[in-house]
Amino acid sequence: MPHLVILYTSNIEAKADMPKFCRALADVMVEIADEEGKKVFPTGGVRVLAYPAAHGAVADGKHDYGFAYLNLRMAKGRSDAVKSKTGERLMAVAREFLDPLFSSGYLGVTLHIDEGHEVVDVKHSTIHPLFGKP
Amino acid sequence: MPHLVILYTSNIEAKADMPKFCRALADVMVEIADEEGKKVFPTGGVRVLAYPAAHGAVADGKHDYGFAYLNLRMAKGRSDAVKSKTGERLMAVAREFLDPLFSSGYLGVTLHIDEGHEVVDVKHSTIHPLFGKP
Amino acid sequence: MPHLVILYTSNIEAKADMPKFCRALADVMVEIADEEGKKVFPTGGVRVLAYPAAHGAVADGKHDYGFAYLNLRMAKGRSDAVKSKTGERLMAVAREFLDPLFSSGYLGVTLHIDEGHEVVDVKHSTIHPLFGKP
Repeated sequence: MPHLVILYTSNIEAKADMPKFCRALADVMVEIADEEGKKVFPTGGVRVLAYPAAHGAVADGKHDYGFAYLNLRMAKGRSDAVKSKTGERLMAVAREFLDPLFSSGYLGVTLHIDEGHEVVDVKHSTIHPLFGKP
Repeated sequence: MPHLVILYTSNIEAKADMPKFCRALADVMVEIADEEGKKVFPTGGVRVLAYPAAHGAVADGKHDYGFAYLNLRMAKGRSDAVKSKTGERLMAVAREFLDPLFSSGYLGVTLHIDEGHEVVDVKHSTIHPLFGKP
Repeated sequence: MPHLVILYTSNIEAKADMPKFCRALADVMVEIADEEGKKVFPTGGVRVLAYPAAHGAVADGKHDYGFAYLNLRMAKGRSDAVKSKTGERLMAVAREFLDPLFSSGYLGVTLHIDEGHEVVDVKHSTIHPLFGKP
């Protein structure tokens, strides 16, 4: 972790550079630091996956509404300040990348950060060793 | 919110009108009222996103089984009566739209309603203002 | 339940037999038994759904990193031993199927088991009757 999964209506696809958007969101997670300047997330654990919906319906359906749902799952135990800062930074990136859609049409973006509540956590990675300890 | 995400086996795609199904589910959410006749969900916050799986496996794999998982995430604080009613209404729509698949083949449908447990909730929308307050 | 949802970077698609992988994971869930030799999951409730991401970003983006996230949602109440065993068995299958990707490139796999926390659970199935009681 952190894992950021983006679920969105397919009408966003043609209007935003989604690969670049994913990279920009990952960069925020790689770089973000806590109150003492320490990296919050291990670089090798940063993952962003984006999924346009095959079908969807938004609100009353009377306009070509768009919706993007950003759901970040992170491990428990970070400070409230770190959580808020992470949310603000990610939303700032979203507002920048999706600005044309907000201003020229109808778009909703929601970012939720969840703390993982897994009862089992098993991992294997050949990425983490590249970065040493976070 | 509410966000309804539908994950389903791809064999359902050809047998059900998924865009119409999404719209019908959204209509239930837009219209549903509580014990006092008050709208439960803000119209501008209703979102349904549907995803056929690229690959999958169901049960013992010996028949062409189908599966649809409807997962509704809503904010905390609604009454048990509202939650139950929402679940029943959505499942009624699912049973109606997927009836041919139930009766002519093997299909499982599960609807879970989860209450959001997000530690950060950041939103921006140009849809909500169209509908004023819920 | 159990529902296993796999979210993964699309670069895995060409290098692994995902349909076979899904089936092998489902087989583990169908067959797994508890301390007393009793089936843990009802056969008709076993579902695996796999989704390659349309877009994504992993770590610092400097290599062609892959990532697969296996998220299993099961009902509450199983023993810790059963949970651990399920996690180990599923990860063993993942390591076997994805071994070429681990050894020839950069891949991360995370398996989380979550216990369902749904406030509403409504089901309908024409699959379960095939298998009688679990």
